Amino acid sequence: MRFLPKLELKFRRWKKLKKSPLLRKLDIICESARKRTFQQTPDADYVKRLQTEYGENSGKELSYKRREQFMYNGSFHEAVGAILLTAQWFAMMPVRGVTAKHPSSLSFSWRNVRTCCCLLFIVSMLINLSLTIYKVLNGSITFNNVRPLIFKSCICLVCGTALNLARKWPELMMHWDEIEQDLPQYRTQREKQRMAHSIKMVMFVGMMLSFAEHLLSMISAINYASYCNKTDDPIRNFFLLTNDEIFYIFDYSTPLALWGKLQNVYSTFIWNYMDILVMIVSIGLASKFRQLNDNLLKFKGMHMAPSYWSERRVQYRNICTLCGNMDNAISLITMVSFSNNLYFICVQLLRSLNTMPSVAHSVYFYFSLIYLIGRTLAVSLYAASVHDESRLSLRYLRCVPKDSWCPEVKRFAEEISSDMVALSGMKFFHLTRKLVLSVAGTIVTYELVLIQFHEDQDLWDCDQSSYS
Amino acid sequence: MRFLPKLELKFRRWKKLKKSPLLRKLDIICESARKRTFQQTPDADYVKRLQTEYGENSGKELSYKRREQFMYNGSFHEAVGAILLTAQWFAMMPVRGVTAKHPSSLSFSWRNVRTCCCLLFIVSMLINLSLTIYKVLNGSITFNNVRPLIFKSCICLVCGTALNLARKWPELMMHWDEIEQDLPQYRTQREKQRMAHSIKMVMFVGMMLSFAEHLLSMISAINYASYCNKTDDPIRNFFLLTNDEIFYIFDYSTPLALWGKLQNVYSTFIWNYMDILVMIVSIGLASKFRQLNDNLLKFKGMHMAPSYWSERRVQYRNICTLCGNMDNAISLITMVSFSNNLYFICVQLLRSLNTMPSVAHSVYFYFSLIYLIGRTLAVSLYAASVHDESRLSLRYLRCVPKDSWCPEVKRFAEEISSDMVALSGMKFFHLTRKLVLSVAGTIVTYELVLIQFHEDQDLWDCDQSSYS
Amino acid sequence: MRFLPKLELKFRRWKKLKKSPLLRKLDIICESARKRTFQQTPDADYVKRLQTEYGENSGKELSYKRREQFMYNGSFHEAVGAILLTAQWFAMMPVRGVTAKHPSSLSFSWRNVRTCCCLLFIVSMLINLSLTIYKVLNGSITFNNVRPLIFKSCICLVCGTALNLARKWPELMMHWDEIEQDLPQYRTQREKQRMAHSIKMVMFVGMMLSFAEHLLSMISAINYASYCNKTDDPIRNFFLLTNDEIFYIFDYSTPLALWGKLQNVYSTFIWNYMDILVMIVSIGLASKFRQLNDNLLKFKGMHMAPSYWSERRVQYRNICTLCGNMDNAISLITMVSFSNNLYFICVQLLRSLNTMPSVAHSVYFYFSLIYLIGRTLAVSLYAASVHDESRLSLRYLRCVPKDSWCPEVKRFAEEISSDMVALSGMKFFHLTRKLVLSVAGTIVTYELVLIQFHEDQDLWDCDQSSYS
Amino acid sequence: MRFLPKLELKFRRWKKLKKSPLLRKLDIICESARKRTFQQTPDADYVKRLQTEYGENSGKELSYKRREQFMYNGSFHEAVGAILLTAQWFAMMPVRGVTAKHPSSLSFSWRNVRTCCCLLFIVSMLINLSLTIYKVLNGSITFNNVRPLIFKSCICLVCGTALNLARKWPELMMHWDEIEQDLPQYRTQREKQRMAHSIKMVMFVGMMLSFAEHLLSMISAINYASYCNKTDDPIRNFFLLTNDEIFYIFDYSTPLALWGKLQNVYSTFIWNYMDILVMIVSIGLASKFRQLNDNLLKFKGMHMAPSYWSERRVQYRNICTLCGNMDNAISLITMVSFSNNLYFICVQLLRSLNTMPSVAHSVYFYFSLIYLIGRTLAVSLYAASVHDESRLSLRYLRCVPKDSWCPEVKRFAEEISSDMVALSGMKFFHLTRKLVLSVAGTIVTYELVLIQFHEDQDLWDCDQSSYS
Repeated sequence: MRFLPKLELKFRRWKKLKKSPLLRKLDIICESARKRTFQQTPDADYVKRLQTEYGENSGKELSYKRREQFMYNGSFHEAVGAILLTAQWFAMMPVRGVTAKHPSSLSFSWRNVRTCCCLLFIVSMLINLSLTIYKVLNGSITFNNVRPLIFKSCICLVCGTALNLARKWPELMMHWDEIEQDLPQYRTQREKQRMAHSIKMVMFVGMMLSFAEHLLSMISAINYASYCNKTDDPIRNFFLLTNDEIFYIFDYSTPLALWGKLQNVYSTFIWNYMDILVMIVSIGLASKFRQLNDNLLKFKGMHMAPSYWSERRVQYRNICTLCGNMDNAISLITMVSFSNNLYFICVQLLRSLNTMPSVAHSVYFYFSLIYLIGRTLAVSLYAASVHDESRLSLRYLRCVPKDSWCPEVKRFAEEISSDMVALSGMKFFHLTRKLVLSVAGTIVTYELVLIQFHEDQDLWDCDQSSYS
Repeated sequence: MRFLPKLELKFRRWKKLKKSPLLRKLDIICESARKRTFQQTPDADYVKRLQTEYGENSGKELSYKRREQFMYNGSFHEAVGAILLTAQWFAMMPVRGVTAKHPSSLSFSWRNVRTCCCLLFIVSMLINLSLTIYKVLNGSITFNNVRPLIFKSCICLVCGTALNLARKWPELMMHWDEIEQDLPQYRTQREKQRMAHSIKMVMFVGMMLSFAEHLLSMISAINYASYCNKTDDPIRNFFLLTNDEIFYIFDYSTPLALWGKLQNVYSTFIWNYMDILVMIVSIGLASKFRQLNDNLLKFKGMHMAPSYWSERRVQYRNICTLCGNMDNAISLITMVSFSNNLYFICVQLLRSLNTMPSVAHSVYFYFSLIYLIGRTLAVSLYAASVHDESRLSLRYLRCVPKDSWCPEVKRFAEEISSDMVALSGMKFFHLTRKLVLSVAGTIVTYELVLIQFHEDQDLWDCDQSSYS
Repeated sequence: MRFLPKLELKFRRWKKLKKSPLLRKLDIICESARKRTFQQTPDADYVKRLQTEYGENSGKELSYKRREQFMYNGSFHEAVGAILLTAQWFAMMPVRGVTAKHPSSLSFSWRNVRTCCCLLFIVSMLINLSLTIYKVLNGSITFNNVRPLIFKSCICLVCGTALNLARKWPELMMHWDEIEQDLPQYRTQREKQRMAHSIKMVMFVGMMLSFAEHLLSMISAINYASYCNKTDDPIRNFFLLTNDEIFYIFDYSTPLALWGKLQNVYSTFIWNYMDILVMIVSIGLASKFRQLNDNLLKFKGMHMAPSYWSERRVQYRNICTLCGNMDNAISLITMVSFSNNLYFICVQLLRSLNTMPSVAHSVYFYFSLIYLIGRTLAVSLYAASVHDESRLSLRYLRCVPKDSWCPEVKRFAEEISSDMVALSGMKFFHLTRKLVLSVAGTIVTYELVLIQFHEDQDLWDCDQSSYS
Repeated sequence: MRFLPKLELKFRRWKKLKKSPLLRKLDIICESARKRTFQQTPDADYVKRLQTEYGENSGKELSYKRREQFMYNGSFHEAVGAILLTAQWFAMMPVRGVTAKHPSSLSFSWRNVRTCCCLLFIVSMLINLSLTIYKVLNGSITFNNVRPLIFKSCICLVCGTALNLARKWPELMMHWDEIEQDLPQYRTQREKQRMAHSIKMVMFVGMMLSFAEHLLSMISAINYASYCNKTDDPIRNFFLLTNDEIFYIFDYSTPLALWGKLQNVYSTFIWNYMDILVMIVSIGLASKFRQLNDNLLKFKGMHMAPSYWSERRVQYRNICTLCGNMDNAISLITMVSFSNNLYFICVQLLRSLNTMPSVAHSVYFYFSLIYLIGRTLAVSLYAASVHDESRLSLRYLRCVPKDSWCPEVKRFAEEISSDMVALSGMKFFHLTRKLVLSVAGTIVTYELVLIQFHEDQDLWDCDQSSYS
């Protein structure tokens, strides 16, 4: 089912296996024995006991687990704190209090230094964008040449949207917190940590790969600059190549070159970060659905009171509302991220048919292409996992025994099967696994047509220098 | 969600914010306090009070608001009065009594002077169309050359359909009025004015842009005519160019030229008006669904009597029936509008690859292309908003508390989730947001294929003169 | 909604209007008065009276309408009698007793002379097909050249399927009759005649157009034969051209030429008849759904007993079962008809880009193309009308008042909204209005690509002589 | 409906018909008489009697059918025993105890000799794959040239997945057995044998065709090798041609050639076996749904107790769960099988446009293409039959009479109509009949584009020697 989350799961299971195989076996035997007893003599006591164990209002446990509770409460706000802090170093999402214990500490202000940095960057980016527009309009407009234009427009658009998102963030986190409090809680520290772990893993792997890609890009550019060799200074050559839109108008000067480089680094971070943001929100929402599903799984096939189902239904509804709110907040970013990735994959495939100028180029090019496809796939699959998890609840409802079948279960089941819960791109498309297939199909068809009618158009040309 | 309606909403909210921030805050605090009290002690009185406030049979309010009521009653008939009157100046929709207070004053007659004007225009247009057919058949038939033919056929078809629509209009408006009377009424003048405001805004903006486009088209044509320079008289050159289908057969004469120009102006108006008509009907229907949804929102999550739900369900059903009737009446126009827009976008994109003969041409061309895409998008999004609003009711039904869940709510929810309420193009396709994506996808693919295999076919040619 | 059936309806209404406007008006006033009275005082008597009027077991009416009953009973068997008889003259559907009063007289036997004729034709067709295969394999295999091969394979396949259908026909008609007996009966002769009238109209118009097309094809062939002029004898030239697959192997001889011509005439009939068969079955099924819907419409919004709904539901279910059985019986023919039409439209569009050798050719070619497109559209729309009518019942169920809402109505509504009732092509696709759009879209795209990359391939060549 | 299963059914019916027409008729008359009596006087006795006859707990029958029971119990484990054993000769699915009476004897161990063989083959295959990668990277990368690369990667991937499947197999079979025990049992030996018979037939026909294709491939290669004639030794020529990736690096030596040939034979078997595996699992799942449907058919339209429906619903749910588990286990194989088939069909169609070097080649090529298309179609249709059978139950539920309509039937019907039960390719697409159409449409479109823009690219070249 879920491909990437599954990999994670397997890794975790493998770690668990290593630790205490004996204890784990005992646990399984014990639990299955308990269950079997229960299925033969369905006494209400056992259910009550179970409910108490996994329940919400288990007061005693709370008291002697206080220390651990202070370590981890499993909330989304807590999990994304470090991520947002990193983003703030790159002029994104200027919200105060992201690392605080409780979302009530969050606040947004136009006069904050972070907000000012962010606005400054946007202005600087807009200047760069207009230089790029000027350069592109003076050349011929082709599918390949508008690449820097599209890249920088997306960055500006995402920055603006992120600023807007930052304004809504405190409110969204309060809503999130409210719903999380109401959900059936996990008992162990490990289960609470799970979501935060996934989020941090995604951020770490994403950043590492993006860093590697940027390094390779620089090496390839240095290589290429020395090959084209406009001036004697290799550093100057490099900057003339990578910031050609600036030096198309202005003469070369070190401050301008540094400004260009800084813009470049920031843009690359933001270009990667928008995909990571979509993934993180998806992980958060999917994990909330999973939290509910884990509870439903515990009581699968048992005789539960209507009040149990009513409670779960309201919780499910709350997560759906949360999902809708988050979707409204980030759907523009989702759409930009998707269309941007699609465009870049198509352009890279078009370029893949041409002969490469050097080995360094070739290595960078294929690494970059694979990274791009992998990232797009990861975004799609993580986003689709929200929809998958939301449908999973239905499976448990199908197993409700005849006697426990009540109007509330019926209502719950009907709501799940008729609603469409998923992240979307401005409501134009929903992010599900079917979408992945149709996108892949479109790309393959495009590539096939390209191959069939291919003529080598020398895209790696010193004059054009649109190498990046 | 709704992109264009949302812009409007934001604009309105911003205006509201400017006016009385203090009072607004007090309102919010007061209302939330009232609500909180209610949720803790669900006494039937409060609900009754609320229902009275927002209800239909609130007799007293009516008495001392009579003056305002005479100013605005929020009906669709009233809102489209001025629009239809404008259209009648351009030989469209010849119905009497469009500016009357009540739709019962509407009537259609074949002997009315407006109907005669309309018939006269249709006949004149058909003559023009046959001249065009003659000219096209004598040249080579290509995707680009049949443009004037398709343009004029669409105008004729739309005129005929509009005449037919005019015959049904009195009956439709009576039906509309009946349903509006039955809906939960808005209390304030502002809320009543909302729909009329949107409709007038759309008409105004649409007409302004269409006027600008026509002016630019004329400037560009004058420019082009002087460049090709068939005769010495610049005015004559202009008319020879813009009405080439007439002077292909007849010799040049001023009355014929004026007739051609008049046809031209009328055609351009009608070409824009058919899109505006679809938008206006969409706004009307969506606002009726919103009126219902606003009422459902007021009582969201509260304990309501089954009779409340039963009433809402019947009202919802009535709007659905209205939506179906309006769809039957205008679906031919919708289809012509859509296919026409799609064809023109494709042709313009094909022409965009060729080099322009002059700057005036270039400005006109890009303005026209952007206007065309914008208009198509606006029609699609406004039409899709009917479907979006009709689905929105479901969200409120999902929040009905357990105790108020009754067969009527169940029936209501099931009907919403299983029915497809949307405007359609002859029932071949439904106008939803998904359609926008698939249409956009098709256009992009077509453009990609065009770019990939592009050869410059000199379409801007003095001999062909199919410049418009 | 339904385009072609609608035209018929309008025509019929127009005829009705001409006859007795005064009487009609009185009827309407009277009926609406009765209805209004009823809605105010819902006495059970009125409903019972109405039910008796339109009901099934209205014994008295039967007695004094016996004469008329002998004239028309409105059954499908009766309506298709003449059609099947015509088909039998062209070696299709060899069933005995097609013009009998009751379907119990129908029988199929392998020893019947009609069956033998049919088998003889199939054998003769297979010989012709092998000659064609031989000729095609000896030339180059292109999209255009395999046309006669595909044409003749389809004819053989359809003949075989029709023979198989003939075997099942008696049983199918018995099933049909059983279900028709059970449906709510029409009272007037006109309503009973309606379906038979539609079916005969379709057959008549289809046959006339097909005859005209065949004549034009012959004229064009004669014209072309005299132009190519292989021998001195014009008749010989004609036969050498139209039966080139025979005289590719054998020398010219009059009996062979006549055999070829006979094959040709029969093939053309069968090629048209398969589309007509699909239309006729569609009309039959749609009219059965309409019969039920007319009854539901009569009692729309009234308080009916659960037994009424239960009865209607069973009747609806029966028609669905009938629809499924008919679909199983003819779905191979449906698929052949559809794919065949699609293939021929694509080939004709490909040929439309080439210059025609003569005016006669040009006239024939465009008539044939328009006829082909029109026929395909007619088949699609008539077949889609089955689905449309089956969904229509839902609209009446939505208006059931709150008090009459019972489990039976609920079950009825749920079954309609969750089932897919439509004719299909081997269950690979369902024939709905959406299909028409997607097919049209595919053809337009194909044509656009063709136009964009067109090179004139001289397809009208004396040597190839694949003109037909 | 089901095309291939239908053929089988017809064949079986025809065999039945031959045997005892008289007895069969008597049976039918007798049964219909019984049924008619019942429909008039619905006494509970008859139902009970019927239930006993066809029921699960019919103790007596079991006693005097023990001998037959030892011959056949109709379980899936028993049916696939011989198939899996055959596969094990070709290093696939190394599970112990596949031919045992009960699935509890199944076991998997890493130290088993079969597992070692399997691992050995995978290692050997990986070496071969790296040789192929080396050869492909040194040539030009085109759609056609990467064929051996894709072929061998798929084989490796499938082998690995099959090994993983083997580990889960014992557990899966236990689950399957548990569910089968619970299903309504067939009474006769013939009905029990049905599934096993279908499975064996598919295996037999598949293996025969695959063997024929391999033989033809060898003949064609020998022919081609003698034509290209690199050395004097014909056997050497043959091996140089078929194992070009080995002798691209190493010098020719007989052991290497034999190793290559062995690899070749094994690969071909596995390439065919993965499709057969998907078919077999599909037949198994579909037959379980049919077993349930046959029981529902027996009691169609009768008055059954709620407990009957509750039992059937749980059984249906169990098969759905089984279907989900099997899908999870084999969905990677399904996806590889599908994409592989699609790729090879496209490549073969691309090659079909080129002229063949010899008749032997031509025969082999067309046989191989038809076999490929047929196999793909067979996999699709068998896999789609799972979905078709799972929807069929709904038809019987629609005929439940009014009085027997109870919440359990309602729940059953709603679950069937809202769930999607089908095999899938990694959940990206579901295997239904609609999929077949869309895949066929894609291939036809691709072929059309190819034909339209075809230039002969000499793919049959002695130097390239990518003939296979």
